[in-house]
Amino acid sequence: MTQEPEQAVEDTDAREDDAYALQPKNVAAILFAVDTGEREKLIELMEPLHPADIADLLEQINAFDRMRLIKLYGKEFDGDILSELDESIREEVIRTLHPEVLADAVRELESDDVVDLLEDLDEAQQEAILEVLEDSDRVAVEQSLTYPEYSAGRLMQREVVMAPEHWNVGEAIDYLRSTDDLPEQFYHIVLVDPKLRPIGNVGLGRLMASRREVLLRSLISETFHVFPVTRPEGEVAYAFNQYHLISAPVVDESERLVGVITIDDAMSVLDEEHEEDILRLAGVGEESRLSDGTVETVRQRLPWLAVNLATAVLASLVIAQFEDVLATVVALAVLMPIVASMGGNAGTQALTVAVRSLATKDLTSSNVWRIILRELSVGLVNGICFAVVMGVLALLWFGSPVLGGVIAVAMIINLVVAGLAGIGVPVVLERFGVDPALASGTFVTTVTDVVGFFAFLGLASAVLL
Amino acid sequence: MTQEPEQAVEDTDAREDDAYALQPKNVAAILFAVDTGEREKLIELMEPLHPADIADLLEQINAFDRMRLIKLYGKEFDGDILSELDESIREEVIRTLHPEVLADAVRELESDDVVDLLEDLDEAQQEAILEVLEDSDRVAVEQSLTYPEYSAGRLMQREVVMAPEHWNVGEAIDYLRSTDDLPEQFYHIVLVDPKLRPIGNVGLGRLMASRREVLLRSLISETFHVFPVTRPEGEVAYAFNQYHLISAPVVDESERLVGVITIDDAMSVLDEEHEEDILRLAGVGEESRLSDGTVETVRQRLPWLAVNLATAVLASLVIAQFEDVLATVVALAVLMPIVASMGGNAGTQALTVAVRSLATKDLTSSNVWRIILRELSVGLVNGICFAVVMGVLALLWFGSPVLGGVIAVAMIINLVVAGLAGIGVPVVLERFGVDPALASGTFVTTVTDVVGFFAFLGLASAVLL
Repeated sequence: MTQEPEQAVEDTDAREDDAYALQPKNVAAILFAVDTGEREKLIELMEPLHPADIADLLEQINAFDRMRLIKLYGKEFDGDILSELDESIREEVIRTLHPEVLADAVRELESDDVVDLLEDLDEAQQEAILEVLEDSDRVAVEQSLTYPEYSAGRLMQREVVMAPEHWNVGEAIDYLRSTDDLPEQFYHIVLVDPKLRPIGNVGLGRLMASRREVLLRSLISETFHVFPVTRPEGEVAYAFNQYHLISAPVVDESERLVGVITIDDAMSVLDEEHEEDILRLAGVGEESRLSDGTVETVRQRLPWLAVNLATAVLASLVIAQFEDVLATVVALAVLMPIVASMGGNAGTQALTVAVRSLATKDLTSSNVWRIILRELSVGLVNGICFAVVMGVLALLWFGSPVLGGVIAVAMIINLVVAGLAGIGVPVVLERFGVDPALASGTFVTTVTDVVGFFAFLGLASAVLL
Repeated sequence: MTQEPEQAVEDTDAREDDAYALQPKNVAAILFAVDTGEREKLIELMEPLHPADIADLLEQINAFDRMRLIKLYGKEFDGDILSELDESIREEVIRTLHPEVLADAVRELESDDVVDLLEDLDEAQQEAILEVLEDSDRVAVEQSLTYPEYSAGRLMQREVVMAPEHWNVGEAIDYLRSTDDLPEQFYHIVLVDPKLRPIGNVGLGRLMASRREVLLRSLISETFHVFPVTRPEGEVAYAFNQYHLISAPVVDESERLVGVITIDDAMSVLDEEHEEDILRLAGVGEESRLSDGTVETVRQRLPWLAVNLATAVLASLVIAQFEDVLATVVALAVLMPIVASMGGNAGTQALTVAVRSLATKDLTSSNVWRIILRELSVGLVNGICFAVVMGVLALLWFGSPVLGGVIAVAMIINLVVAGLAGIGVPVVLERFGVDPALASGTFVTTVTDVVGFFAFLGLASAVLL
């Protein structure tokens, strides 16, 4: 008896150290079992892995190994693995699975996970999965699919634990004890009025700590948010993060309770939105995945490079206006990329802070003018610093005080413009309803390139020709 | 009686629409109340705001308004506002608060929030806050501060609900009902052995749904993770996200239960880490905040611009080697920034995907060679596409097939190198224990600038001189 707990602690430790990130040596052992077709060995090796780890494993190995592993693993395949899988290879895995295994896997899932699964499949695959569901589940899933993509309605699970507002603690506990199909995890009971409209959340901790005769209504949590089914999932995630919500009810147009969103779903959305922001800022397609092949990757990245080419050609057109002075003073060709590069970097700095602040709703019309003024001052201060450095450097390198002066003035102009563009472009894009993370980078570096070359070469031709 | 619930629903709706992001019109009304010194009006306007919204408000307004608002708001100031405040202005706010208000505010907080508050304060302020705590709380907080910064020990709260492993459901419920100081929110009871080592988590949902005589041990959750106090908070957050944890116990060196980490704390860490990654990738100090002043902002951004200047000068030194050919063919000066710019962009794309995949542990030694091969192919395909475009463009623009050929070949070389550097640099940095988000960008663009200019001008001088 005393032996058992010790065992449990050791198991936990072992699992943590191994499965944290999937260890390469485990992956190698699993692939070896697949190569040699040892089913028992494979199952033994996979047993300690969490479905999320198995999904990671499937993403890391190549398509051929993936297919063989899934075939060999057979009916051990768990529904949660499908939920955890990246969308880019989910379709492929579903096609590989034996129809019976797929049916079993899908039946295990909660309704929100089934919806998430179906969203990205083609119609034939959707049909195949809907068919294997029980009637009531199928209706629930089909109903969820009528809500807009990326809405609270798609994110919620339909399994809700609710209670009439007039119940007391004892009635709630008796109800919970007598109910068979409670959701796997839940943290609150939603109180509803006779029209099924949510009135408040009662946390299970407070419920447990109260005597049987206490009214549920007196235990309602202070922080309570209700989301309409159409609320975008990004705003739901923002509210969970901002107000430290654990679960929140979702209502339809007539304010009736139809589902509940839990913090782990919100956390996934937050994670995805961050990921998309980073990828967009870098000009990589937001759907980009590590497991994508060459063709898919080229398809995502080529458009952004094409936009960049267009802006680079624009900058070259500016340079071409000054061929005369460039032919006379070759030093200009040597120095001009420095001015453009510094402007591009300073602009990206200001831009990144602005894009993030817009996303987190920290940058609003209440403080935008103060921040614009700050970026202007920062650009000026940085501009003066680097003007001095580059002025001296150009003087020493080419022995020309005039050249030093020209690059110094151009540097100040470009860093001030970079600051203004860095904050101004995303704010204006946001106001016009364009995602600033997506388009700001190209705009800002175009501005700093064009202004940088124009200021530097323009000044030079005015002074030196 | 039936009136009350309706009221509640309406309140919720109102709060949601208004406070979601702090509406500029509310901010204006609040500032007006501050201007006119109307305390009742101010309290009335602030009443519906969540502490997180009040913290946002304080961050958005300027330092003078902030001081006046805090003075006028007086003892209404809630401890949770301090926890929600950005570190950059927390110190200032603490200095502004009346010592008695501060004492009351701090006493309301859970131990993890107090620790979080103290971390960033100077010693005099730390002392002042520790003094007002009750003895037992002070000892707990001081103990937590002995753990390394950004560790599980700092993140955990010390308020834990635990039960001996041999208890049944009835004993647990009786214990909860008889205990006064339960944490405000909790989701699991931690089962411990006689040496206080955690054995498993029992979710409150399963507990509530079970009969009094059921043993707690039989209700243990399948997914259970234990973190040592020294575990870095980033890894804790990763595990919460990967394994959908809601709460997890923390143990000291002798594996004794000392605290518990909950998902909302993990969510905050995840959020911060993402933010830092984005800011680092953009070469902005990771501590950068929108509320920072000009001096602070310059201090954060100038070092990265200085690094960029050094690499830009390096690229210029490469250009300077080809002054002869530049003086002969001015078209080269016009076209050369295009090659460098395309390389820089393609490199940043590959790099961003690599940095994120390393952070999410998706890029491992199991698949790194496959990804390197993919980046190589992507670089080659993109290179060929843009080589054709630029070759034709240069031919049409300058009427020189040789110039077209030179830029085409240079483009292919630079995009292939960009792909390799984009994946190779972060992987190598990670292996040497350097944060790839921090340093990769500069390395990669240096490589693509140098290679771009060298390939283009080198080829040109070989062919055209």
